[in-house]
Amino acid sequence: MNPTERIPQIDEALEWRYATKSFDAERQIDPATWDFLERSLVLTPSSYGLQPWKFFIVGDPAIRAKFRENGWGQSQFTDASHVIVFAIVTDLPQSHVDKYAERIAEVRGVPVESLSPLMKMIESDVIKGPRRAIVNEWAARQAYIALGQFMGLAAVLGIDTCPIEGFDPAAFDEILGLKARGLASVVCCAAGYRSPSDKYADYAKVRFAPEDVIEHI
Amino acid sequence: MNPTERIPQIDEALEWRYATKSFDAERQIDPATWDFLERSLVLTPSSYGLQPWKFFIVGDPAIRAKFRENGWGQSQFTDASHVIVFAIVTDLPQSHVDKYAERIAEVRGVPVESLSPLMKMIESDVIKGPRRAIVNEWAARQAYIALGQFMGLAAVLGIDTCPIEGFDPAAFDEILGLKARGLASVVCCAAGYRSPSDKYADYAKVRFAPEDVIEHI
Repeated sequence: MNPTERIPQIDEALEWRYATKSFDAERQIDPATWDFLERSLVLTPSSYGLQPWKFFIVGDPAIRAKFRENGWGQSQFTDASHVIVFAIVTDLPQSHVDKYAERIAEVRGVPVESLSPLMKMIESDVIKGPRRAIVNEWAARQAYIALGQFMGLAAVLGIDTCPIEGFDPAAFDEILGLKARGLASVVCCAAGYRSPSDKYADYAKVRFAPEDVIEHI
Repeated sequence: MNPTERIPQIDEALEWRYATKSFDAERQIDPATWDFLERSLVLTPSSYGLQPWKFFIVGDPAIRAKFRENGWGQSQFTDASHVIVFAIVTDLPQSHVDKYAERIAEVRGVPVESLSPLMKMIESDVIKGPRRAIVNEWAARQAYIALGQFMGLAAVLGIDTCPIEGFDPAAFDEILGLKARGLASVVCCAAGYRSPSDKYADYAKVRFAPEDVIEHI
């Protein structure tokens, strides 16, 4: 099969998806599907492959309730099958880059020393270079790649999602004890199945006309 | 068919994909596939649905050559079938929010006035509220959702991609005349087919171990 034959099913999935406001609290994503979705997070592309992130999968009902309190009371935090907190590694430390080099060496079976050109390039950019000043924003952008890929692929698998920026990041960091670990929450995503009573599911999807957002040059 | 039966093919696609360094300059993405990929960009989710972006699809060889000159000489700019520049709407103007309200009214057949609670919420956040100070970063993060979804879905369709942050955004803005239009480039993505001689295709994919990036709570 030519992979492009998948277009109709993906097209249908993108039309089907919406930011689910009300999840069916009784329905859980089955373990095999969730395992794959976690795997897709792990496989997300990132700048230099540095993966400046950690994904917290929060099931604990008490913590979920605290999230809701610090997230505008949004029911997605308590009712969705799964809740992900996308956290960044803050002030990207040299140790993270070193760990990455060791991981490349391990996976590819090459000496760490052979990676020094790449590591020097990374250091001259996000560790000591011009992007150091915005390194946390750089990391946050990478986390949003993960968010975007996750929502798109979840839709193809028939899994509902709701991206959530409406929460108090400082409170979430406190709840999860992130600051002391050099991490910070940047965005959340609830995943599961829409409640049959979520009226938002029936609203027509609103996007600007293609000619307003796409320009060919 | 249960959509979760698609897991093996998506899993295979994510393993297959890599940041393509060398594209086959002779192979073009067919128009139907590209049309769908553009459509997927249009359908990308964003904060409040505000779509603070514009996607430039650049085919002009002269402009592509200028991109390469201002993009570390990377051959992806000239050799890939398609090149997208992801641009944000800078300093999100009230007019953008108004245009969004009009679009909702048009698509859903409701009076614009009925949307005022949502519009007030938006205004009290990204127009006049706490996130105004970081509104361009907020917009850039949204553009990265589009990038993430695009790369994931392209892989499922057997299309190679390479995300590119290594370029001079000011130069790109100049080349495309973005500043005067209230736009700014934030990231690029090349798309097409890998060159058979791209040695990077054979390198083992490097990701941190799942237990290093995923935490269950």
